[in-house]
Formats: sequence, C-alpha cells, structure tokens
Amino acid sequence: MIHLITGVAGFIGSNLAAQLLSKSIRVIGVDNFHLGSEENFEKFKDDPNFDFLNHDMSDLSKISELQNKLSGKKISYIWHLAANSDIQAGVKDSLVDLKLTFLTSYVAIELSKALSIPNFIMASTSAVYGELAGQLSELSSPLTPISNYGAMKLSSESLIGPCLEQGMQRAFVFRFPNVVGVPATHGVIFDFINKLIKTPGQLEVLGDGTQKKCYMHVSELIKAMLHCLQSVEEKGLHCFNVGPRDDGVTVKQIAEKVVSKISHDAEIVYGAGNKGWVGDVPSFEFNISKIEALDWTPRLTSENAIDLAVSEISEQLL
Amino acid sequence: MIHLITGVAGFIGSNLAAQLLSKSIRVIGVDNFHLGSEENFEKFKDDPNFDFLNHDMSDLSKISELQNKLSGKKISYIWHLAANSDIQAGVKDSLVDLKLTFLTSYVAIELSKALSIPNFIMASTSAVYGELAGQLSELSSPLTPISNYGAMKLSSESLIGPCLEQGMQRAFVFRFPNVVGVPATHGVIFDFINKLIKTPGQLEVLGDGTQKKCYMHVSELIKAMLHCLQSVEEKGLHCFNVGPRDDGVTVKQIAEKVVSKISHDAEIVYGAGNKGWVGDVPSFEFNISKIEALDWTPRLTSENAIDLAVSEISEQLL
Repeated sequence: MIHLITGVAGFIGSNLAAQLLSKSIRVIGVDNFHLGSEENFEKFKDDPNFDFLNHDMSDLSKISELQNKLSGKKISYIWHLAANSDIQAGVKDSLVDLKLTFLTSYVAIELSKALSIPNFIMASTSAVYGELAGQLSELSSPLTPISNYGAMKLSSESLIGPCLEQGMQRAFVFRFPNVVGVPATHGVIFDFINKLIKTPGQLEVLGDGTQKKCYMHVSELIKAMLHCLQSVEEKGLHCFNVGPRDDGVTVKQIAEKVVSKISHDAEIVYGAGNKGWVGDVPSFEFNISKIEALDWTPRLTSENAIDLAVSEISEQLL
Repeated sequence: MIHLITGVAGFIGSNLAAQLLSKSIRVIGVDNFHLGSEENFEKFKDDPNFDFLNHDMSDLSKISELQNKLSGKKISYIWHLAANSDIQAGVKDSLVDLKLTFLTSYVAIELSKALSIPNFIMASTSAVYGELAGQLSELSSPLTPISNYGAMKLSSESLIGPCLEQGMQRAFVFRFPNVVGVPATHGVIFDFINKLIKTPGQLEVLGDGTQKKCYMHVSELIKAMLHCLQSVEEKGLHCFNVGPRDDGVTVKQIAEKVVSKISHDAEIVYGAGNKGWVGDVPSFEFNISKIEALDWTPRLTSENAIDLAVSEISEQLL
C-alpha cells in the first residue's frame, strides 16, 4: 500500500509524509521545489519507505510522462496537497492560482484515473465559502469565494465528481482553516516574525487587526484527516470542514503574542480596514459537527494552536 | 454601449447576436470556428452594428493580444457563451472541457477585469447539480457534477466571485436546461435526424430511452436572460435556473417525434441503462421560482420546445 503525496516539500505535505513514514507506510512524494524546499524533508529523505519524484504537477504537457513514471506502483492513496499557498500573490496575478492550484489538481485527477488510484484526498480551504454569513457547514450555499485562491480551490473540488463516476472509490475534500506549525513557509506568524527580524522596533500589520480567523496546528490537522479516512468507508465524495470549535483569534492578538515573544518593545502599527488584502475574508466560523459525528474532537483551541506555533516558528526562524 | 459575445458563431451565441442587433445594439462577436461556423452568422455579418474578431478564447498566451485588440472599445456587457458543447467528447478526453469551457472562462474573466467591463453574463448548465435529488434550486447543495462538462462549468462559475471583489458590477450565471432550436450544432434532435439521414430504416438510441430532461427553445432562453438583466440592478452575483415549469420529456418521446416526422417506418432500437453515456444525468427537475419572481414565465413547455425544434432542425438538415 503506497501513499502518493503531491506537494511533499511543502508545509503540510512534509508533515504528512513524516507522520505516514513513522507508521512504516510507503510514501512517494512529488514536488518541484517551486514553493516547497528540500530542507522540509531532510529528516526523512533517507527513509527506505520514502521515494521522491521531482515533477511539475501543473505541466499539462507532462501528464503522460508522470503516468509512465508511476505506472506499476500500487498506489492506494493520492494526497493532493500541491497548491499555491500565497493568497496575496494570486490576487496580484491570477495565473498563480490557475497553475499552482487548479492545474495541479487537474493533473492529480488525471493521474488518479489513469492509474486507477482508489482514494483521492484533497486539501481545500475555508476560502471556498467566501463571505457567507453564519456558521459554515459543508452544505452551506452558495459558495462564492472572493479570492482567486478560494476560486481555484473550489474549482478543484468540482473536478472530483466525474472521477467518481469513472471508477474512483472514495474522495475526501478537507476544507482547512488557517494551518500553523513548522516548517512554516508562509502565514501570519511567519510574516510577523520575519518583519520583526528586519525591523525589531516596529511591526506593521495589514488591515486594522480585527480580522478574526480559526487556526489549527498541523499535527492535529493530519490526525483529523487520518481519522476520517479510517472512519468513512462508503464510496463517494466526502467533504469535511476541519477546524477548532471556537471562532478564532484576531490578528491583533497574534501580533501581540509574537511581539511579546520576539521583540517586546516593538510598536505595533495597524493599517486600515478589516481586510488584510483584496480577497481577504475578515472572519468566519466553521461548523465542524460533521467531523465531530465521526468521534473526532479538536484538542487545541485556535489560541492554543497559535501559542504552540509562535514558539515553533520562532525557533525555526531565529 | 457594446455587447461582446464569446462563441458568437455557436448556436446560442449567433441567436443572441441576431436578437441584440435587431434592437440596433452594437455587438462584437468573438469566435475561432472550432465548434461554431461562419454560416451561423451569415444573416447578420454585414450589419453595420456587428464586428467580428477571430480569436481563440482558450489560449492563455494571447490574453494581452485580445485585450489590446479590444481596448478603447466601450464594452458594457460580456456574454461568455464560448464553451464545449459536446458532453460526450469531454467524457472521452477531459482536456476538451478544460480548454474549451474552463480556460475560455478564465480568459473571459481576465478580459473583463483588464477592460473594466461592468457586466458579465455566463452560460452555465443544469449539469452543475450532478445527480442531486428533488427540485434543483440555485441554492441546492452540494454541487457535485458527474461529467467533466458540468465540472468545468461549475469551475467557471467559481471564478466570478474574486472579479466582483475587484470592481465588476453585476455577474449573471444562467444555468440552462437542454436548449433546442436552429442553427443546431449538436444535441439529441440533431443526432437523431442525422442518424436517420444515414440509416432511414433504423434509429439507434443511446440508453433505454427513459432519460427525462427539460428542454427550452433558444428564443425563449434569450428573452429570459434579457429580462433578468433588465430586472436586477443590484451589484453582485446573480444565479438563475432558466427552464420550463415541467419535468421534461423522455428520450423515447423525442425519438418517436423525430421518427414520425422524418422517417415514419424506422424502427427505434434502444440501448441499455438510463444513461446515454458516462456522466449523463438521467433526469432532473428545475425549480424556477427565482426567475419567476422577476415576473418571467415560460411560454413553452418542454414538449412545445421539442416540437418546434424538430420542425426547425428538420428544415435545417433535410
């Protein structure tokens, strides 16, 4: 039984690979180091259960090449984690999300069909809900993302149905909140610490700091996904919100935590408006009753996750 | 005030252009004759209010070229009708729907942003609902299309939200039922008549004939869309099911109508199963209360539309 992970050199991909390898599960990782880095899998790159394939998952002209390289391997699970992770980059240039998020999904789906991989798992996002009011459940509608990032994730989700019609057994779509931990490659804590390294006396915050979001630690996210895979056996598309029970912490709280940890004399300077950038969703609250019905409960609150990640990312960067 | 129509050489595009031009509205039509044909706009190609641009809307490398050709024109509406129309072709090769449906939508959206076109209108489809049970309303969820055609239409819809965030005023997504009329380029009536031309004694039907779908005549569809544009002034994304009130007619009924019209001694030979092909949705029923609330009412039933189209398409092909 082999698990294939696209985006294995990224933040979540490398954590997932480490977790699977720790259980002696065979892993093939795919990445092209466009956003991920080899450092991220330094710790397990010599594990005999780990194979690596350097390949650009967004390249439509190399789908057959990819299929040929992987044919004959008995891949049971494909974890599609390759994606753009920089929402703001995709606001400036929509080609970023088209290529890194949507086309990689298209190629991953084509690969699943060609190799008859029975299980497909995809990282999606709370951003698919856009600015829908109220608690967001998996059946909330209409889904109108306001960032290209969210749009290309939702588009990627759309590709799964036809694949199930053509023989795929189970597909899992996990809609992530903000995920934190190490090796951090992006995100609010990572940005704040990097800013304070450059200008220790001042921390400039995008927006007025009132944006309030849910955060989850990567370790808990991975456990939650593995729990769902074990708990749901029915053929079909299974979509889950994964997140904490609370409604999140504000950017202001995070800025204060980072400042007090790294550079406690720094002045925090806020911008205007409750959006960090065009397409930023100022606040949302996940309804997680569907995953909780599978006897899964988050252990950490958003604040716990932030505290843990501030420590970890400080250690990573300083 | 200029209306730009992508896919102007196609079935619906050419009908829409004719309708707008009949009201002395200026139209720029874009097409590359991949699926459409010049014949389709023979009747209005010399209209002084009509300009034509031969361009491949799926070509990402030519977005700037397209923008340059159209910059300086005061385009108020973009009707994005360019798309794959052959669902079965997209089942065999998913690249067809990726390119002709999704990438053309991506390019149309990029064009809207670059030229600040305030109104975007997109042809979507009942296929976005997949096999959801019950009456399908615009808020039905989850949307899990089972054909690549439906998946790429749903993906295209997803692209609109970020664009509204970046300045677009109104976006209309019209989810079409099966649309019939002339100039027919595809569809069940077109296929049946062509089959009977080849083999007048026998009509082979894909599936067992029990598939039941809603049909709308193209003339009524265009009136319905124009009615919505006039009735809804609010900024935002406005999604409408457009269709008749009934739950449709069966493929068997259509086969019998075509046979009695064209070749009344022909034997009708049915296939197996209630799907014409992988990804075919055997039956669906639209809830059209949202568009009806705008004081629009369908004049024709599905059966009326089929009867009219059988006459028209017979005349076109025979």
